[in-house]
Amino acid sequence: MKKVAVILSGCGVYDGAEIHEAVLCLLHLARQGARYQCFAPDKPQRQVINHITGEEEQSSSRNVLAEAARIARGDIKPLTELQAADFDALLLPGGFGVAKNLCDFAVQGANTQLDAEVLAVCKAFAAARKPAGYCCISPVLIPRVYPAGVKGTIGTEAAVAEAFTAMGGEHIGCAVTDVVEDSRYQVISTPAYMLAKTITEADTGIGKLVKRLLEM
Amino acid sequence: MKKVAVILSGCGVYDGAEIHEAVLCLLHLARQGARYQCFAPDKPQRQVINHITGEEEQSSSRNVLAEAARIARGDIKPLTELQAADFDALLLPGGFGVAKNLCDFAVQGANTQLDAEVLAVCKAFAAARKPAGYCCISPVLIPRVYPAGVKGTIGTEAAVAEAFTAMGGEHIGCAVTDVVEDSRYQVISTPAYMLAKTITEADTGIGKLVKRLLEM
Repeated sequence: MKKVAVILSGCGVYDGAEIHEAVLCLLHLARQGARYQCFAPDKPQRQVINHITGEEEQSSSRNVLAEAARIARGDIKPLTELQAADFDALLLPGGFGVAKNLCDFAVQGANTQLDAEVLAVCKAFAAARKPAGYCCISPVLIPRVYPAGVKGTIGTEAAVAEAFTAMGGEHIGCAVTDVVEDSRYQVISTPAYMLAKTITEADTGIGKLVKRLLEM
Repeated sequence: MKKVAVILSGCGVYDGAEIHEAVLCLLHLARQGARYQCFAPDKPQRQVINHITGEEEQSSSRNVLAEAARIARGDIKPLTELQAADFDALLLPGGFGVAKNLCDFAVQGANTQLDAEVLAVCKAFAAARKPAGYCCISPVLIPRVYPAGVKGTIGTEAAVAEAFTAMGGEHIGCAVTDVVEDSRYQVISTPAYMLAKTITEADTGIGKLVKRLLEM
């Protein structure tokens, strides 16, 4: 039975992990016979966003790990405890939390720096040539983890695709129901809610990504 | 295309809607060709629970509607806007938010009173003989909505089953992958995470419940 580490970035599309994508990742892993363990950085979120108004709650503060624990039903560990040697693969759902808490892409764009723990973990999986799957906006991390020319997709959103290229990656346009794979580096990505208009569209792409991730 | 109203009670198993169940409800509705609209009461949560420690954050306050909006990706309305006439069916995922925010079962047990808006909406669907599905702990609402003797399940948890009976319902034990239906009242329930040990078990029961809900 394969073991997959899942990195969450909070709980909620606008300031944390995209909830549908996170749950669909867990669902497809379990359905396809894999075990999973969720992880998240134990640090404050960059922002707390009211998900009705879309506005920042300036006076609020939430912890990425504690909020991600909502998706994991409490079964989650701090990212410092994630050792690539203990797992067969890595999986990152999307959500603005990736661009706000796992790196600073939301602010810096193509100049983004990754959270040091996130970078170390992702690089460890890459160095061990263990497969890694990136959903939605999380492929913006890929060019910082893999060598120049690494292939990935964030769908068809021009500005983010350009940033992916500016960071040294090769961006491949991709339908919401499909995946882009760079077999040289065992890395795979799917647009999910970068393009999905319905939960079933996100489900199709994520199901395909998880299937390939476990086959790699 | 059938339209289903989904009532959420926050975002997170210990103080709000159970996230996996909520997402699985939306996924199965969409997969089976139904449209849905999420609703939640616009009021403070009873508690905010740290989902790692399980402890209450006494100094925190969150709004049920704003937190539920995280699951609904912002597409949610206050429960006061839910008119049974606009929908073909009603669906309630579980989570302690049902027992804390939609009623006070978590504190009062079999003496629970329902939130007035929740009671009015659920009774409106019952009066119109429109089908309603209750997952996990949310069937504790059923005896307050339907006539004495109404059948429902919360799985096999003895204390909650006894409370269901004490409130005038007829509790039927049920496997996690199955549903209990009272065709007299068009009401159906499934244990979900009252019993589920994995997300796939919850998925099976909720998939079956949604299928029957849309057939009714």
